[in-house]
Amino acid sequence: MSDLQHKALAVSDSNHLPTIGQLPSGPRNAISDVAGVTVGHCTLAEGPVQTGVTVVKPHSGNLFLDRVPAAAAVLNGFGKSIGLVQIEELGLLETPIALTNTFSVAAVAQAQIRQCVAANPETGRSLPTVNPLVFECNDGFLNDIQRMAITEQHYFAACDAAQVNVAQGAIGAGRGMSCFGLKGGIGTASRCCDGYTVGALVLANYGQLHQLILAGEALGPLLAERLAQINEPEKGSIILLLATDAPLDARQLRRLALRAGVGLARTGSVFGHGSGDIALAFSTAYTVPQEAQQAMPAGAMLHDARLDPLFQAAADSTEQAIIHALWHASSVIGRDGHQRHALADLLPEQTVPSLHHVNHENSDLH
Amino acid sequence: MSDLQHKALAVSDSNHLPTIGQLPSGPRNAISDVAGVTVGHCTLAEGPVQTGVTVVKPHSGNLFLDRVPAAAAVLNGFGKSIGLVQIEELGLLETPIALTNTFSVAAVAQAQIRQCVAANPETGRSLPTVNPLVFECNDGFLNDIQRMAITEQHYFAACDAAQVNVAQGAIGAGRGMSCFGLKGGIGTASRCCDGYTVGALVLANYGQLHQLILAGEALGPLLAERLAQINEPEKGSIILLLATDAPLDARQLRRLALRAGVGLARTGSVFGHGSGDIALAFSTAYTVPQEAQQAMPAGAMLHDARLDPLFQAAADSTEQAIIHALWHASSVIGRDGHQRHALADLLPEQTVPSLHHVNHENSDLH
Amino acid sequence: MSDLQHKALAVSDSNHLPTIGQLPSGPRNAISDVAGVTVGHCTLAEGPVQTGVTVVKPHSGNLFLDRVPAAAAVLNGFGKSIGLVQIEELGLLETPIALTNTFSVAAVAQAQIRQCVAANPETGRSLPTVNPLVFECNDGFLNDIQRMAITEQHYFAACDAAQVNVAQGAIGAGRGMSCFGLKGGIGTASRCCDGYTVGALVLANYGQLHQLILAGEALGPLLAERLAQINEPEKGSIILLLATDAPLDARQLRRLALRAGVGLARTGSVFGHGSGDIALAFSTAYTVPQEAQQAMPAGAMLHDARLDPLFQAAADSTEQAIIHALWHASSVIGRDGHQRHALADLLPEQTVPSLHHVNHENSDLH
Amino acid sequence: MSDLQHKALAVSDSNHLPTIGQLPSGPRNAISDVAGVTVGHCTLAEGPVQTGVTVVKPHSGNLFLDRVPAAAAVLNGFGKSIGLVQIEELGLLETPIALTNTFSVAAVAQAQIRQCVAANPETGRSLPTVNPLVFECNDGFLNDIQRMAITEQHYFAACDAAQVNVAQGAIGAGRGMSCFGLKGGIGTASRCCDGYTVGALVLANYGQLHQLILAGEALGPLLAERLAQINEPEKGSIILLLATDAPLDARQLRRLALRAGVGLARTGSVFGHGSGDIALAFSTAYTVPQEAQQAMPAGAMLHDARLDPLFQAAADSTEQAIIHALWHASSVIGRDGHQRHALADLLPEQTVPSLHHVNHENSDLH
Repeated sequence: MSDLQHKALAVSDSNHLPTIGQLPSGPRNAISDVAGVTVGHCTLAEGPVQTGVTVVKPHSGNLFLDRVPAAAAVLNGFGKSIGLVQIEELGLLETPIALTNTFSVAAVAQAQIRQCVAANPETGRSLPTVNPLVFECNDGFLNDIQRMAITEQHYFAACDAAQVNVAQGAIGAGRGMSCFGLKGGIGTASRCCDGYTVGALVLANYGQLHQLILAGEALGPLLAERLAQINEPEKGSIILLLATDAPLDARQLRRLALRAGVGLARTGSVFGHGSGDIALAFSTAYTVPQEAQQAMPAGAMLHDARLDPLFQAAADSTEQAIIHALWHASSVIGRDGHQRHALADLLPEQTVPSLHHVNHENSDLH
Repeated sequence: MSDLQHKALAVSDSNHLPTIGQLPSGPRNAISDVAGVTVGHCTLAEGPVQTGVTVVKPHSGNLFLDRVPAAAAVLNGFGKSIGLVQIEELGLLETPIALTNTFSVAAVAQAQIRQCVAANPETGRSLPTVNPLVFECNDGFLNDIQRMAITEQHYFAACDAAQVNVAQGAIGAGRGMSCFGLKGGIGTASRCCDGYTVGALVLANYGQLHQLILAGEALGPLLAERLAQINEPEKGSIILLLATDAPLDARQLRRLALRAGVGLARTGSVFGHGSGDIALAFSTAYTVPQEAQQAMPAGAMLHDARLDPLFQAAADSTEQAIIHALWHASSVIGRDGHQRHALADLLPEQTVPSLHHVNHENSDLH
Repeated sequence: MSDLQHKALAVSDSNHLPTIGQLPSGPRNAISDVAGVTVGHCTLAEGPVQTGVTVVKPHSGNLFLDRVPAAAAVLNGFGKSIGLVQIEELGLLETPIALTNTFSVAAVAQAQIRQCVAANPETGRSLPTVNPLVFECNDGFLNDIQRMAITEQHYFAACDAAQVNVAQGAIGAGRGMSCFGLKGGIGTASRCCDGYTVGALVLANYGQLHQLILAGEALGPLLAERLAQINEPEKGSIILLLATDAPLDARQLRRLALRAGVGLARTGSVFGHGSGDIALAFSTAYTVPQEAQQAMPAGAMLHDARLDPLFQAAADSTEQAIIHALWHASSVIGRDGHQRHALADLLPEQTVPSLHHVNHENSDLH
Repeated sequence: MSDLQHKALAVSDSNHLPTIGQLPSGPRNAISDVAGVTVGHCTLAEGPVQTGVTVVKPHSGNLFLDRVPAAAAVLNGFGKSIGLVQIEELGLLETPIALTNTFSVAAVAQAQIRQCVAANPETGRSLPTVNPLVFECNDGFLNDIQRMAITEQHYFAACDAAQVNVAQGAIGAGRGMSCFGLKGGIGTASRCCDGYTVGALVLANYGQLHQLILAGEALGPLLAERLAQINEPEKGSIILLLATDAPLDARQLRRLALRAGVGLARTGSVFGHGSGDIALAFSTAYTVPQEAQQAMPAGAMLHDARLDPLFQAAADSTEQAIIHALWHASSVIGRDGHQRHALADLLPEQTVPSLHHVNHENSDLH
């Protein structure tokens, strides 16, 4: 038995998903462990259309009137997101965060504008215009992206479906995504420290198989050997969302967002040239009113010297969320017969039961 | 006669538009003085719909395959543009530059994707996805922005209309724009130095009237007195485009783009909080192939120590373009009877003939 | 009489310094109108040594323990400052702000470290290391910069001399500076709005004479004609400091700092290639403790939609401070007989009495 | 035997240093595998003074006249480096890169200025001023940093000692550095791909022991148990230098520099709050003349789509260099009896011979 095979067994032998780091997760091990945060999916899975929309809501109120502090870190800017210019300037979210495929950013942004106008009829008149926030990855291997199958209704459906139980894998915006040449998609996790929670949600669509490092094990070369037929250049991306209930301002949230990149790096990514790797962190600790005559929040921010545990939580929950995305994604066949295999199908046979076991134990994730 | 009235007269006495700086303009005094650059408009002007699309094409070829070096400088990020994340990373344009109203960014971005797919069927498949580039200002005072009247066809129409003769004022994306509480819109100008040309095109929709400085004269307070009825908070924006034929890389173009802010500042703008003030500069001196197997350009860049004349040209042509936008914009009545007056209507009576004279003299601008 | 001569007269006729904008200045028209802020100079003026140190203290306490929110905007990064990396990350000042010549940054930074260690013996041990903050311009035309004449003692002397009365012109770090080919140096001003004060202090050492715009008048070409003998490429810089008592966080202070560039642009600068044009803004509204066990400040920040008056104040006070620097600078002869003329010497004769008059009226500035 | 002990054995069993990734290293497995690059150390090791200077020279010529393209990525800006403002603006190195302790940046910067003036007497006169480039970490645990023991002579000595054979561990600027609570210091490595070489050199002074991940193995908790006496908050930093002979411009080098952070993240770092984690990459493929009348380089840059192998090389060589720094650092006792143990002393006994063996085999590294 080769060294690499031994490592793969070591991973699968454990009868459970690898657990990253030493911090405890929250009760759901999901971004929704940050109180108030919900996630909704809308999935399209018919023949060559394998795509969808995922929405993360920082709170259930009117986000345009009660804005949430936020900041982004662009790890690699080969991406077509909309909304980051204003977030960089003002440090505030004012819509749900939407994830979808690259060619559907416009449809979803349009839907966000309509949603805001419907809730706030003076948007763009006596009130400012709204800043849509849509992230994307290219699911064009499995999904016929040129069809632009996503419509505004799919965004509204994802919003309506938002809940604290977060389904993972080949679902929502993750439906058509690939990761390390395997089936990728949506993953989530959380870590707790110092009385605060950091939750991560990823849309994982990056990496070449030979690069994969799973919980420290460089499994990529072994798995690449098993999947010898596939060897394409990377055209992926990953969106990394972090939520926390710690009272942080936009400058501090930018620092936190960058640490999602630490978790990403540990999985074998080198932030590939063609990958739009963008992290965004927000805090639910307070809101900032849209209207200047409203009172501004007056709570104390966390001292920067207390950020290290949150940085650890951000890195660990991100790595964990990526593992969850790979672990929970089932094999999908899409356009032109293109197929992505599930990680579970490639690990040695004895892994399958343990995987089922895990799914059973973590049934609240679904 | 008050001091301010004296100043207004000084401006109007001159029998011609104020000319900024000492560098000569190109033959058209327009961004199209940079060889290969063309501009197209599509204008919607019916009752409450006063809006449009303007397109700037860096060259007439396939921009997705032969990309143009570019860089942006965000002076104030209260804006909803799409495309800047990738331009920051790669320093390349790969579509025409589109300008429109805030709520129509999505429609135009969608049109750019379709346009690219039509020209390059492998977009998002064997070729990368395309990066739409759409800038916007909020024309909601004159235009019923919530109707989202712009469709993909309007973008295609603007592209088809692209030519070297650049119409200015209340046209294209400038149709519904306001500037210093007056009628704003599209303006263009150029300056020549050291054998190179710098061309500017602005979509001017910013400022409060009392701030206006016209060619160094602080005319704002005088004009504000005449227009006593209007006194609203700023909700504007300005998009500042610079083209040059000098061989500059993306780092240098970012430096150039920032100098558009110098021209803007001289007109009285303080880069207001609610204004999306974004500058973008591109060079036509060379292109970068989309496909890695094509040869990369190998010409020498300009030494940075030779940039000062170009910086001066960028500042002067930008200020001149803003003056042109104000000068050429005619009065417009839009939604709910909202009206913006033309600058020409507010200057002392004797200005009007001179203004006509100017229009006559500069007929090649139309 | 030529048009340009007429303009020069218009400036000098007014019997007082040009006043920028419509906002009122504070009682001293100086950065020290922001309560708690003091400024100290140490000047070296002997033959070929024409240089110095200027210090701005945000408050009179222990800045290392009680840090001040701050942010910088680099308009043109041809500069050798020390300290900006950490300010970008943490948004905090922890030393006085020091200004000096380019080759003396190291000596002054060393002095700041010693000063901090003396006041806080655990610096770099149980306490973090201190972040020196030193800005510079190149005064090498008048000053023999290669002598590195500044020592740590000069920094301490400037600190000891700090007071609310701010001397301007060819003093402190401004001693050897040139501006538009004339004598430059230190200038300060302030503007009040909405109950807050914004104060500016500049170290002005930039520009070519033909570029000079004085209070909107493009006087440069006229003055350049009078000083025909001088025509050198720009090797200058300007440091632009803004203080305010408005409660702003680092993100907002970065926005404010950028508006110093608006004031600079209005004077004719195009942020020249070889010029290190750096703005820094700080707030005195609260402090942030060095030690994490201390309580964090809990006051509300200003709503961003209330920033426009402060932006106007930043732009206007900066332009005014630059005019003050030119106005108050007396002619200096330095190394190798190099001379810089005072602006006052070049304006038409009748300006001189008015200038004296101004100096008399504003004697509290000295 | 616990799981963690098993992992430690797995590392030590291999009878050689862990090797990161699948790309081959260059002949020296050092930054000097990039042709022309040399490294020099000057070490101070007497009682409470345990510090030094390390210099990396991109080429052996006059760096001020023939400048090298370069760019930095600030992973965490709790640092006091000098020189990055100008590198961000111009994308060029014009001195050797110097590494030292936090309180000695000023002394070394001063030495760089003198060195440049000596070689180019018109520096700061007819030639521009020179931009010193000095990075630092805080070695205050072992070294009495408040003594400021480094003088200009130590910088000159390090320059004089520059050679292609790079000594590693507790040497030069690395003498007093700590890493993961162990002895850190200087490490170097290289990787080759597509005909190019990427070399890394680190000054490693970061991390808490429980975080340590060695070649994928989370050894930190095991080693932390063995070193129970030490548990302090992080006050570290790491400087990450990358050299390459690939023809890249400053924009591309910034992309490369960020990938040093990938290697750093894999070792367990979360870019801690108090850590100045700064990466800088430079290319030796061409130089840019200081004087504008000299010819500019005219070679083609690498297409961005060809960067992925270089990104992998940057990540892998950085991780390898950090492992080298830990592996080669011997135990040091410094001020007040403070001691840092070598990693080798903490790994299970059977590791020691293998370590010796490794040192023997790799003797060209010393």
